[in-house]
Amino acid sequence: MNYTIIFNFAGNLLKFLSLVMVVPLLVAVYYGESLLPFGITIAITGILGIILSRVYRVEGEWKVKEGLAIVVFAWITAAIFGSIPFMLEGVSVINSIFETMSGFTSTGATVLVDIEAYSKSLLFWRSMTQWIGGMGIIVLFIAILPKLGVAGRQLFRAEAPGPMEDKLKPRIRSTAKTLWSVYFVISSLEVVALLLAGLSLYDAVTHTFSTMGCGGFSPYGEGIAAFNSPLVESIITLFMFAAGANFALYYRTIFSDRSSLIKDEEFRTYSLILISLTLVLSVVLWQDAYQNIFESFRYAIFQVVSISTATGFATVDFNMWSDSAKFVLLAAMFVGGTAGSAAGGVKVVRSLLFVKLSFRELFRLLHPKSVRPIKFNGKAVPENVIMSVVSFLGLYILLSFFTASVLALQGVDIVSSLTASFATIGNIGPGFNIVGPYANFDVIPFLGKVMLIGNMLFGRLELLTVFVLFLPEFWEE
Amino acid sequence: MNYTIIFNFAGNLLKFLSLVMVVPLLVAVYYGESLLPFGITIAITGILGIILSRVYRVEGEWKVKEGLAIVVFAWITAAIFGSIPFMLEGVSVINSIFETMSGFTSTGATVLVDIEAYSKSLLFWRSMTQWIGGMGIIVLFIAILPKLGVAGRQLFRAEAPGPMEDKLKPRIRSTAKTLWSVYFVISSLEVVALLLAGLSLYDAVTHTFSTMGCGGFSPYGEGIAAFNSPLVESIITLFMFAAGANFALYYRTIFSDRSSLIKDEEFRTYSLILISLTLVLSVVLWQDAYQNIFESFRYAIFQVVSISTATGFATVDFNMWSDSAKFVLLAAMFVGGTAGSAAGGVKVVRSLLFVKLSFRELFRLLHPKSVRPIKFNGKAVPENVIMSVVSFLGLYILLSFFTASVLALQGVDIVSSLTASFATIGNIGPGFNIVGPYANFDVIPFLGKVMLIGNMLFGRLELLTVFVLFLPEFWEE
Ligand SMILES: [K+]
Ligand SMILES: [K+]
Repeated sequence: MNYTIIFNFAGNLLKFLSLVMVVPLLVAVYYGESLLPFGITIAITGILGIILSRVYRVEGEWKVKEGLAIVVFAWITAAIFGSIPFMLEGVSVINSIFETMSGFTSTGATVLVDIEAYSKSLLFWRSMTQWIGGMGIIVLFIAILPKLGVAGRQLFRAEAPGPMEDKLKPRIRSTAKTLWSVYFVISSLEVVALLLAGLSLYDAVTHTFSTMGCGGFSPYGEGIAAFNSPLVESIITLFMFAAGANFALYYRTIFSDRSSLIKDEEFRTYSLILISLTLVLSVVLWQDAYQNIFESFRYAIFQVVSISTATGFATVDFNMWSDSAKFVLLAAMFVGGTAGSAAGGVKVVRSLLFVKLSFRELFRLLHPKSVRPIKFNGKAVPENVIMSVVSFLGLYILLSFFTASVLALQGVDIVSSLTASFATIGNIGPGFNIVGPYANFDVIPFLGKVMLIGNMLFGRLELLTVFVLFLPEFWEE
Repeated sequence: MNYTIIFNFAGNLLKFLSLVMVVPLLVAVYYGESLLPFGITIAITGILGIILSRVYRVEGEWKVKEGLAIVVFAWITAAIFGSIPFMLEGVSVINSIFETMSGFTSTGATVLVDIEAYSKSLLFWRSMTQWIGGMGIIVLFIAILPKLGVAGRQLFRAEAPGPMEDKLKPRIRSTAKTLWSVYFVISSLEVVALLLAGLSLYDAVTHTFSTMGCGGFSPYGEGIAAFNSPLVESIITLFMFAAGANFALYYRTIFSDRSSLIKDEEFRTYSLILISLTLVLSVVLWQDAYQNIFESFRYAIFQVVSISTATGFATVDFNMWSDSAKFVLLAAMFVGGTAGSAAGGVKVVRSLLFVKLSFRELFRLLHPKSVRPIKFNGKAVPENVIMSVVSFLGLYILLSFFTASVLALQGVDIVSSLTASFATIGNIGPGFNIVGPYANFDVIPFLGKVMLIGNMLFGRLELLTVFVLFLPEFWEE
């Protein structure tokens, strides 16, 4: 294991982080808040970054192992150093790291009890971490740093969401730049839309950060319900839906083939699932909760899109809904966005391939000698991709149940344990009961919080990248 | 589709059923109960059986399709005709079929509210269905009927639990006979042990039926708690454990290689899981529920073995335990017995192969070019077996969530919906909340009952066999 490379990369990352934190510092200047939290953090991060990148100088190549270690180590570094401003505003160490990991992984689970009590600059940073993490720290890095070159492709793969590589451009740096550009443009559109809907610039920007990163943080304890505006809800619903789809596909739709989006099997399935769940939930809510179908539809579409795309915003305390309605949201938790999106969950393409695999076996029962490849977007999917999808789902289920059991054994009730586990590994945010949308992860015992911080990282880096670091073989020379 | 063969087989099955029901008729004679319920059923079943097998005469061969249809149709026929005595004692049609399907599939979920109100002969039959169904209706049939010959192998495969064929003997009929002999001998041992522990012959036989079939029915509303005897609990625990292991393995251990059992990877894993869960549950119960570790251990070991082997007996209302303790049982629900046993669940071997598959992917991440087969009992498992295991688990999860959602949408709470679904598809019996061990499936709405009857059949015939009948292609000529 070449540690020099890892520390060198961490050094560069810290320099980058200290630069990025100039933005919340400016917010603090604008609102006349104390400059100390971000000033101190920028200084610490920047100086340490310069030292590390000077001491550990490398130009050499790296192997698979180093690439994986770099990605995981980078994310942990970002979560720790990004959490310093929280600590400086009096949040405990574990809670600060929880909140920052929840931000960068765009999970949106919160441990801050009285959100409005914190400074506007801190809450701005909190939302901003979701935007950065949503598209990917490493991807942003690759787009900006020219040095990485060819080696960047492997890092890109380790962080990119989804089972199959999306070769948008021959050079990985161009791909990274393109993705970030599309992300930036759509985000700008949302800011404008929210401004036109009457939000302040601060509210428009922070909520755009959380929407586009599929994050779910809001500077208000009430979340999106604070605006009580069907127009704002509609805009956010639309952009959550957009953020849950493949950004590479948007690029292709605009610049090469207009029908790319509509022809894409994953996008079609994603849309179909969201529409179906919305319709079912509307009817259930009409029966169980609200006066008329319009009100039911308003809450249903927002919550289905929010949970399915793993954003986690709430316009209502859905924890108070009937169990029938909650079951629909439970189903939504397992959808996730599409591969190549900022959304969490297992991703639609994986579920789709798993279902196709299951049904193929039925045909094999009738035609034992048939060899029938599984198709996706009209092309045969290699069997080793299928195997890795299945392994992913296996590890996903194992980790979910393992974390849930740790919570349950610490006295957390079953529904809270299971949904807290799913909501963190899927980077969704809220669960049910004590971790509901208007409840708080602060009630989780210490060990549970540590597990959930791990879950968020595992979920964001799509398990294998992090799991592999636990193999003894990984650390052998 | 050759319907003649299917009806001919059904006819033979009915003749066989009417013969079997002479046993509960004799019980009715002994206890001086009305002979009408079984008398009428024997007459109906026998006459219809003779007519069907005379009208639809076949000697011909059948293809894959016919074989699958025969098995599914045979189980449905058995559940319908076996339920007539319940109807004749005043149970509603849906409840009678539910109870009988629950019996033959050795699920043990009950809809009878006041169990002791029914005749001793009926409750004897209720337990007996679990014993017959536990080892398999078709297997018994193959063992007895000489006519089936070669074609029997396919039927045997369709009903046998587990992903891999266990070639005990070259001729399938000998295998079937051997399995039933081992089953019969171990069952006799349990009857003797229970008699020595002070139970009446009636209690010893009925509880042996339910234990060995991993069924869980008891003629007493209190279940095993009715005896309040640590000795009886120990005996039943031991035989539940035995019934959850591979019967072919017992035969091999006795007649060929003494170390077969102990060397078997699945048996070792099965034992290890049960021991671990028992230890964890003992500690949890000691903390949360009982005065001392001995009492905790007594309840823990019984309940872990009962739920893990999908038997479903209870010595205590575990629904009243803490959520921590219930989570341990939730984990136990996903163990199941081993392949080739009478137990339900997904079977240990499948979980084991799935975990191995998931971890193989981690190695592939480090060594992308390696080809590394998954090993089981030291031998490489063919990739198509792995694929079929994975498909099985996929369909299992899909069906569980689908049924649970139907229950939830009908107003059943989430925990009850999920556990009722798992408990029926896994042929376990009781779940939590409204379907807890001392609660009753009678509260489930009509449509829910129909779904759960389906679940039991799907689970017992290991999904694919039943699923395939829903493919339009299956019915095409
Ligand atoms: K989220
Ligand atoms: K059972």
